[in-house]
Amino acid sequence: MAEQRQGQLHLGAFLYFTGHHHAGWRHPSSGVEQMFDIGNYVRMAQTAERGKFDMIFFADLLHLIYPSHAAAGMFDPIALLSALSMATEKIGLTATMSTTYNEPYNAARKFATLDHISGGRAGWNIVTSQTDAEAFNFGREQHPEHGLRYEMAQEFVDVVTGLWDSWEDDALVMDRGAGLFADPDKLHALDGQGRWYRSRGPLNVPRPPQGYPVLIQAGSSGPGQAFAARVGEVIFTAQPHLAGAQSFYQGVKSQLARFGRTQDSLKIMPGISPIIGSTEEEARRRERELLELIRPEEAIGFLSGMLQTDLSGYPADGPLPDIPDPVIASNGMKSRVQLIMDLARNENLSMLELGRRLLGARGHLQFVGTPERLADLMAEWFRQYGCDGFNIMPPVLPGDLDDFVDHVVPILQRRGLFRESYEGATLRDHLGLARPGVGHFHPDRVQQ
Amino acid sequence: MAEQRQGQLHLGAFLYFTGHHHAGWRHPSSGVEQMFDIGNYVRMAQTAERGKFDMIFFADLLHLIYPSHAAAGMFDPIALLSALSMATEKIGLTATMSTTYNEPYNAARKFATLDHISGGRAGWNIVTSQTDAEAFNFGREQHPEHGLRYEMAQEFVDVVTGLWDSWEDDALVMDRGAGLFADPDKLHALDGQGRWYRSRGPLNVPRPPQGYPVLIQAGSSGPGQAFAARVGEVIFTAQPHLAGAQSFYQGVKSQLARFGRTQDSLKIMPGISPIIGSTEEEARRRERELLELIRPEEAIGFLSGMLQTDLSGYPADGPLPDIPDPVIASNGMKSRVQLIMDLARNENLSMLELGRRLLGARGHLQFVGTPERLADLMAEWFRQYGCDGFNIMPPVLPGDLDDFVDHVVPILQRRGLFRESYEGATLRDHLGLARPGVGHFHPDRVQQ
Repeated sequence: MAEQRQGQLHLGAFLYFTGHHHAGWRHPSSGVEQMFDIGNYVRMAQTAERGKFDMIFFADLLHLIYPSHAAAGMFDPIALLSALSMATEKIGLTATMSTTYNEPYNAARKFATLDHISGGRAGWNIVTSQTDAEAFNFGREQHPEHGLRYEMAQEFVDVVTGLWDSWEDDALVMDRGAGLFADPDKLHALDGQGRWYRSRGPLNVPRPPQGYPVLIQAGSSGPGQAFAARVGEVIFTAQPHLAGAQSFYQGVKSQLARFGRTQDSLKIMPGISPIIGSTEEEARRRERELLELIRPEEAIGFLSGMLQTDLSGYPADGPLPDIPDPVIASNGMKSRVQLIMDLARNENLSMLELGRRLLGARGHLQFVGTPERLADLMAEWFRQYGCDGFNIMPPVLPGDLDDFVDHVVPILQRRGLFRESYEGATLRDHLGLARPGVGHFHPDRVQQ
Repeated sequence: MAEQRQGQLHLGAFLYFTGHHHAGWRHPSSGVEQMFDIGNYVRMAQTAERGKFDMIFFADLLHLIYPSHAAAGMFDPIALLSALSMATEKIGLTATMSTTYNEPYNAARKFATLDHISGGRAGWNIVTSQTDAEAFNFGREQHPEHGLRYEMAQEFVDVVTGLWDSWEDDALVMDRGAGLFADPDKLHALDGQGRWYRSRGPLNVPRPPQGYPVLIQAGSSGPGQAFAARVGEVIFTAQPHLAGAQSFYQGVKSQLARFGRTQDSLKIMPGISPIIGSTEEEARRRERELLELIRPEEAIGFLSGMLQTDLSGYPADGPLPDIPDPVIASNGMKSRVQLIMDLARNENLSMLELGRRLLGARGHLQFVGTPERLADLMAEWFRQYGCDGFNIMPPVLPGDLDDFVDHVVPILQRRGLFRESYEGATLRDHLGLARPGVGHFHPDRVQQ
């Protein structure tokens, strides 16, 4: 066995529609009727906090997907997290915001506000938008090419962190008698002239309590990994197998040194979508129930979309056909296609089984079994350097989050793998990340 | 006396920094130390709700003003209002969002989210950004010309309302058994090809509970009035004198018919910044205290900025010099310059007195006196068709809001001029505004 790693793992609660399973909304334990009721989200955030999760996380898409047969529609995540900050005390509050369809000044201000409102619990998952449907909602015809999107995202982040640094930590004086509100020598304009983005500043919100809200990244491609190695503090990644996860973990962490970063300054958290039962049989039955709620044409349609290849002409119970080379070579598709082909081959799945499985876990690590076995798997991945923790993707919400907190968290705690209570107040405290000083991520500080 | 109008007036609580008075933050009753603490805003929102206000309102600026000698910095208003929705039950939650530096899809989604989260209490003050400092924060060199900005704002609002209409009210089906989440026939793409803005839709948030969040407008210029007459449901305006207010009221309301709108479908609410004392003498003493906290160079500097004319070479205790014609003719300045010149002439103010007065009330109706006299003035303006209510601009926060709620609201209630309790649940209910149906404001529905 490999080296036995000490320490505790980190947990995110990835709250997505009425659960990550495509047909989960139809299951009796889903809260679909409350999907646009803030009370539903309050309850889930409080459940995750009861389970001592490091954070909750909301993905974000700037278009309406699954318009008729699956749960669709997402609240604006900053508005949602701001509301939830009032109903929770400790848990981190994180969400995606696209660099493609926002202005750096607005993005910096929103996350700074959330960090102030929540007392230092904000985190930003930095993504670049990818789908044409999003471009159309913003009056554009298409997206920039994959590599260029990362170059733009890097510049976007440089401007945002520069705006967070535009107030020094002690710029606020608030001396009533002297009439001095802020020290003008500690407020700074940005002098950079970026290729894509510029903002003079200063920001109109003081430096966030955490210095910077935690910077999260979710791209697993080459440019995505390089970007994460430079600015990411958490990576959400899709890793269906331990060997691949270990290789990814090693690959990303080995890039940190050249940016002057320690191994601990970035936490790698694969997604895992667990279907739990008190026995293996119960878990398997539950998995079948959910899979059977997925209509075959949806499974094949989803797989076609994931692979950007029309699969409707192939037999659903046959194997996945070869994916054309030009698709694999296109904008950001390569790592995704490889993961899907590996899954089909390793488990000998038919196209329908593959499509249903992918819709179930959406490409992430799928687990079906008892809480004890899930804890075994999580411990193995953590101890053998496959990850620093997990982003838990409950198939049906809110029911499967309740089950995880009630049945899996206590096992992890008993084994010393997870906290019994929050020790710190901020998301950086929970994740063991240092608070960055002013100028921390500025380009001139980076050792290229 | 003019016709005695019946009915009740509407009240907004305009929460701005630590009060509208420029030097109010230095006063012992300000909450400046809590300015970036959400608890401070919770307390004010709950006070306004205790006073049965129709709404709270946050202005928004996309740059940092008053960087050193006055309270500066503003939370993102959507994040702030979303948080406050959790700490209040009935009061309307309104804020400015610029059409100049946002995308219609993002704006539509944020206000739709706030409306869902708050159970139908959202309102959007539609503004166009005006200052170079804002342009610089968004990497631009300058703003579009005044008239063009309104043309762009109109198109922006058309796209936003189109996105709110992209889900019919009964589009959500959520039939678990049939597997039908939403009725695709009741979800619509927008087919418009605007000159400035486009968005295909549908929005990824269902139609807001209020149909549209309440649409607020604050421009008093000619194009501003025309824009308000078409789409505004509330106007915040600066009217220092009753005669001018009556003329403005009449002018805007007379334009409603050609858009097929009733007189009641738009509420005109001038700002008023009251300095209250239990006696006239106490109120005057309080006014002097506040004015003396303003340094003369700040008063003259502010006046110079308001008039876009350098006044530092003129004697501070002398009269306001003539403002050059090219300034008056420039981008959106005309109505503002006229208001300021009228105030100086009517009250025979020196330049310093004028500058301090304007910094005190920032061009809005200034009141200094007892609660009884303030109630008299509000009643007179309302009964004589100078307004439909007021946007209360407390000079020092939170203290002056407490005083207004404790000492002025009860008088208005006793006189039958203001509600004793909320009768409805939404901001539209409070304001007596109808819920718009799908397509309500679309261009083809407007009678030009």
